[in-house]
Amino acid sequence: MNKIKARIGILTGGGDCPGLNAVIRAATKAAVHQLGMEVIGFVDGFRGLVDDESFPLTFDTVSNILNQGGTILGTSSRDNFFRVPMGPSQKVPPGKDRLPDALRTFRKRKLQGIICIGGDGTLTVAYHLHRHGLPMIGVPKTIDNDVRLTDVTFGFDSACTVATDAIDRLRTTASSHHRVMVLEVMGRNAGWIALHAGLAGGGDAILIPEIPFSLKRVYEVVRQRSRRGRRYSIIVIAEGAHPKGGSAFISFSPVLSNRPRLGGIGMLLSEQIEKETGLESRATVLGHLQRGGSPSFLDRVLATQFGFAAAGLASQRRYGKMVRFLGGKISTVNLSQVSGRPRNVPLNHPLIVTARALGTSFGD
Amino acid sequence: MNKIKARIGILTGGGDCPGLNAVIRAATKAAVHQLGMEVIGFVDGFRGLVDDESFPLTFDTVSNILNQGGTILGTSSRDNFFRVPMGPSQKVPPGKDRLPDALRTFRKRKLQGIICIGGDGTLTVAYHLHRHGLPMIGVPKTIDNDVRLTDVTFGFDSACTVATDAIDRLRTTASSHHRVMVLEVMGRNAGWIALHAGLAGGGDAILIPEIPFSLKRVYEVVRQRSRRGRRYSIIVIAEGAHPKGGSAFISFSPVLSNRPRLGGIGMLLSEQIEKETGLESRATVLGHLQRGGSPSFLDRVLATQFGFAAAGLASQRRYGKMVRFLGGKISTVNLSQVSGRPRNVPLNHPLIVTARALGTSFGD
Amino acid sequence: MNKIKARIGILTGGGDCPGLNAVIRAATKAAVHQLGMEVIGFVDGFRGLVDDESFPLTFDTVSNILNQGGTILGTSSRDNFFRVPMGPSQKVPPGKDRLPDALRTFRKRKLQGIICIGGDGTLTVAYHLHRHGLPMIGVPKTIDNDVRLTDVTFGFDSACTVATDAIDRLRTTASSHHRVMVLEVMGRNAGWIALHAGLAGGGDAILIPEIPFSLKRVYEVVRQRSRRGRRYSIIVIAEGAHPKGGSAFISFSPVLSNRPRLGGIGMLLSEQIEKETGLESRATVLGHLQRGGSPSFLDRVLATQFGFAAAGLASQRRYGKMVRFLGGKISTVNLSQVSGRPRNVPLNHPLIVTARALGTSFGD
Amino acid sequence: MNKIKARIGILTGGGDCPGLNAVIRAATKAAVHQLGMEVIGFVDGFRGLVDDESFPLTFDTVSNILNQGGTILGTSSRDNFFRVPMGPSQKVPPGKDRLPDALRTFRKRKLQGIICIGGDGTLTVAYHLHRHGLPMIGVPKTIDNDVRLTDVTFGFDSACTVATDAIDRLRTTASSHHRVMVLEVMGRNAGWIALHAGLAGGGDAILIPEIPFSLKRVYEVVRQRSRRGRRYSIIVIAEGAHPKGGSAFISFSPVLSNRPRLGGIGMLLSEQIEKETGLESRATVLGHLQRGGSPSFLDRVLATQFGFAAAGLASQRRYGKMVRFLGGKISTVNLSQVSGRPRNVPLNHPLIVTARALGTSFGD
Repeated sequence: MNKIKARIGILTGGGDCPGLNAVIRAATKAAVHQLGMEVIGFVDGFRGLVDDESFPLTFDTVSNILNQGGTILGTSSRDNFFRVPMGPSQKVPPGKDRLPDALRTFRKRKLQGIICIGGDGTLTVAYHLHRHGLPMIGVPKTIDNDVRLTDVTFGFDSACTVATDAIDRLRTTASSHHRVMVLEVMGRNAGWIALHAGLAGGGDAILIPEIPFSLKRVYEVVRQRSRRGRRYSIIVIAEGAHPKGGSAFISFSPVLSNRPRLGGIGMLLSEQIEKETGLESRATVLGHLQRGGSPSFLDRVLATQFGFAAAGLASQRRYGKMVRFLGGKISTVNLSQVSGRPRNVPLNHPLIVTARALGTSFGD
Repeated sequence: MNKIKARIGILTGGGDCPGLNAVIRAATKAAVHQLGMEVIGFVDGFRGLVDDESFPLTFDTVSNILNQGGTILGTSSRDNFFRVPMGPSQKVPPGKDRLPDALRTFRKRKLQGIICIGGDGTLTVAYHLHRHGLPMIGVPKTIDNDVRLTDVTFGFDSACTVATDAIDRLRTTASSHHRVMVLEVMGRNAGWIALHAGLAGGGDAILIPEIPFSLKRVYEVVRQRSRRGRRYSIIVIAEGAHPKGGSAFISFSPVLSNRPRLGGIGMLLSEQIEKETGLESRATVLGHLQRGGSPSFLDRVLATQFGFAAAGLASQRRYGKMVRFLGGKISTVNLSQVSGRPRNVPLNHPLIVTARALGTSFGD
Repeated sequence: MNKIKARIGILTGGGDCPGLNAVIRAATKAAVHQLGMEVIGFVDGFRGLVDDESFPLTFDTVSNILNQGGTILGTSSRDNFFRVPMGPSQKVPPGKDRLPDALRTFRKRKLQGIICIGGDGTLTVAYHLHRHGLPMIGVPKTIDNDVRLTDVTFGFDSACTVATDAIDRLRTTASSHHRVMVLEVMGRNAGWIALHAGLAGGGDAILIPEIPFSLKRVYEVVRQRSRRGRRYSIIVIAEGAHPKGGSAFISFSPVLSNRPRLGGIGMLLSEQIEKETGLESRATVLGHLQRGGSPSFLDRVLATQFGFAAAGLASQRRYGKMVRFLGGKISTVNLSQVSGRPRNVPLNHPLIVTARALGTSFGD
Repeated sequence: MNKIKARIGILTGGGDCPGLNAVIRAATKAAVHQLGMEVIGFVDGFRGLVDDESFPLTFDTVSNILNQGGTILGTSSRDNFFRVPMGPSQKVPPGKDRLPDALRTFRKRKLQGIICIGGDGTLTVAYHLHRHGLPMIGVPKTIDNDVRLTDVTFGFDSACTVATDAIDRLRTTASSHHRVMVLEVMGRNAGWIALHAGLAGGGDAILIPEIPFSLKRVYEVVRQRSRRGRRYSIIVIAEGAHPKGGSAFISFSPVLSNRPRLGGIGMLLSEQIEKETGLESRATVLGHLQRGGSPSFLDRVLATQFGFAAAGLASQRRYGKMVRFLGGKISTVNLSQVSGRPRNVPLNHPLIVTARALGTSFGD
């Protein structure tokens, strides 16, 4: 008699992130090769779940995707299918609740559980669904590195690699031209990328959301270097960094306040520096380049471990858990502990201490 | 009896460009190793000449700079030392004429001639100085590839490589997210980078200054792909591209008109697309990343040949010439023919014909 | 009444080469989008033709392959299906002639012609088939750049980029260690890669098949640099380079003569240098790294133009031609002129002249 | 009255490793900027110490070296200046003991202590010198990741990045050609690089020194994939991997046994596979490419932290210590605990477990 195999689903939610395919591949291969399970992938995150759009994941479908950026399943960053409190305000979004549709798909596809790869928002929804009868396993994902309960997630190393490479490129141009170069990197709430890439790229000032900066102090950094004969300065700024008494700074320009998506802070800062110090200054906004491309070596390793661990949890029916990397190893934590609040850089973080010791300014 | 060696100077002017150091190195090595000349380098372009700031260039000083971006001599993009008609308007800039200072340095340093590496502006000044008694040799340089009289200059291949790599990165993100990605590349007057990188990266639309684009046509491209089930579109736009009846487009937003340096056209286009088509759209502005970093293989080869050719001209006292690459080989042309007008992409350029045949839109 | 569309086939033969997919994509897109033709792809080169294994090429099948290395069609470097004189000896290989099978597939698939992408060997076979009734169009391909009748082919820029990057890497290690670094690059018959990458990477000696080298001269280069205080030397050698009175050198070691595939010449040279000069020496053999990976910007542009041009020839029924890049543009030449003899580097090639002027030794 | 500043020395020993300059820079900057110390750098490792060759390290000398591979101090991998038991055999090398010279330099330069960056060998010497009166601080370094007492060292991430990129390149070629590709990576004693890069690159078999492999099992892996229709196989092998009953394998070829430096195991394995399975197989030996080039983002971060920590120890006169990275943070350990035995991959390492679950073979 043929035993019916357990079947699980996988979906990817939220913003794009290098390593998603590596998780999908590892979970699928482990499930099929070692754990004797079948796997289907939902298309475009929770939309595939509520609309019942999916396809089987096999050794063939996940072949050759390990080094591909993006996600073969698709994702959506505008999910709004469930009535779950979200974000800092914990508001419930309006609209029809598609929970019944999700449950119907789940039963129809005879699933045992779902592996859900995403950031805070996606994982919050996952826990919501879990409580309402859909057994869920979470895999944390964020290039910003600001998910709580885990030391690091895949995507971060790739993003920092792109940002560090950008600093290297700007340095040659800056030094030829006696220029100030401002590089704006991702980090709306937390300064992880700016701090790490700023240290790795040798930025002269690193400005992060956690440490409100003084414009005067930044001008001083730049002027001082110029006086000491340094031909240039490099400033790395997180998109969410803000000056002390920020409103005053932002009121310099009506542009920024109206158009927060323009990558404004870096450009504004660059203009202010040029105006105040008389030194030529140029801004670069990295934007989505930080999310694309092949995952770095390390992100592939981490994502592969996450995928394997998630499949293992599923085969043991340990649902309601999230995999994570803490203290140098993979472990698990309850999905219920996931929270919408981002993980900030602590002010005494070793890299901040190190950077200060080497003479890097944080604008404070 | 000791023969006194001929001595020449080298300077780099205008914007930064990968390959400048390769020219300096090749000219110096050829001069010292083969041609029996001495070389000095002026600091920060023409400023070093008028202020008599220079240092000797030897095998040691040019060691290990071949693969370094930037210029060890420094450059200045705000040169304004001579009363020479410049730019499209052929206006003579105001201020004191420093020609006498340049001549004094030239005599004091006992130079036979100067190799001057730069774009249109720098070469125009070089010809001006040549006519006033400073024997000059020009080496054309521009990442934009818009210098006349030469098929290509070093820096262009490196810039296109950066831009093509950016398209590759954006593609993975675009395809995961069903997004429109707009990439703004350099090219204020001419669309060479956008055309080449757009073709090499497989852009769905390429918008260049030479072909005013219709916004409606761009929306249509994006919508059509969406209807046909394509998950994303990629649009490559030169910073100097403009819509048909451009003023109307620009009047959509007071921002652009006031702030041309914000890398506005790409961001504006992206917002318009999202507003009009309802498809998510994101813009990336590459900016100075295109100028920095190690020169590409090909740019090193070209720059090295230029440097060698320039040193050869100097040793033969063939001044008033510019080296160039035309029809597959290095040749020379009179500096007098250099003109401030940029070289535009002809509308029947083979790459435009090729791109159209493959289904790429130019927005017309 | 429905007009029946013309249908063409595409196949890739010989060694792998970055840009093959770009040719396939461009030919297919141009055929389908502009020229109203259908396209099928034969699997694994001529094998797919004789075994009638193929699949349709459409916008979908060629989507997202532009930046992928390799060939989606597969290739075979051990083709031996036809009785056509090949190689320097012009010997006809033994075995059964599969020409009838090829003709049968051709008729059965109702083809109008075949685009055949490959190196000398593949193109020689293509011409053979053309004369026997299969209308053929050739697209030259070789990372070695040694195909006659064309200035350059796609794949070469990518291979040189990999080799130049390798020199950059070895340089840092060499300079820290006071070492001699020997880099062996591809080029069994011709030294194009060694010459170009050696110049772009600043090699101290470049050894190519066209210029038999003196071991003594190489030792001298290395010793002289050491005496002058240079901390290291870098030697770039083509796999087909050989010493003057080569047999004597090779007899130093029974290894090389028996095992030509071991990447022997670079390793042997390195050992000899260490033995003779007492300076530490290390060899690196790049091997297949030069063939793999995403095609460079320039190779994508060239390959795309080739693919478009080949489809154009097919639609005009101009068979028996090969596309090429000569004097800065795409043109065509008769397949009958293709010859098995490789295109060698002429001894007065501008890059040889340039490299010598800068002090690079060719070991002669 | 002017207080005399404490002065420390820095030296780099052993093989080259990306990140050495980042350590030197961080230690120097922290010493000068924060800790009020002076720094000198010894040239070429211990040789500079015994020969009293050094130069001052200042903000200027360490400017712009963060992203440079190699070491500005130079290193020597043939150190043999002291009579200290070394290596697995704990033999004392012959020759004159230069300890008195080292002590003389130390006193003459008025040093307080020396920061010594190197692998096992260098650190063993450092401890020897420390016991004989030269206060020493150790910074571990090895691209192989096989230093005991620390979870990871800088250089490893860079080396794995190079190796993973190589697998990506070989994959495209392998898949076009139906080939077996064998990649030999560094790791004479331990398989860290092969394991990590093999997992990140998706190798079908990973062969490491810790797990003697069965040739038959490797043939089987390759044949099985071929039978299942996979177009290729990728095998990653550490240079120190060896077959079960290794002597028998090695006796296949007299070459390997005589010439261990030829990167033999990968090439031999490739030949055996081709001979036994009839499938085409090609070997690539990465060699020194793994040591060169700009350090990866992560290695710069780690190296910078190590340099800062080492300077901090010096300023607190906590000599006889080594800095390390354990359990996610920087800490210290006594130099006396350093041992010449390499740190091996444990057989139950999480990455081995993960790789096996995904179907990767270890040849056992």
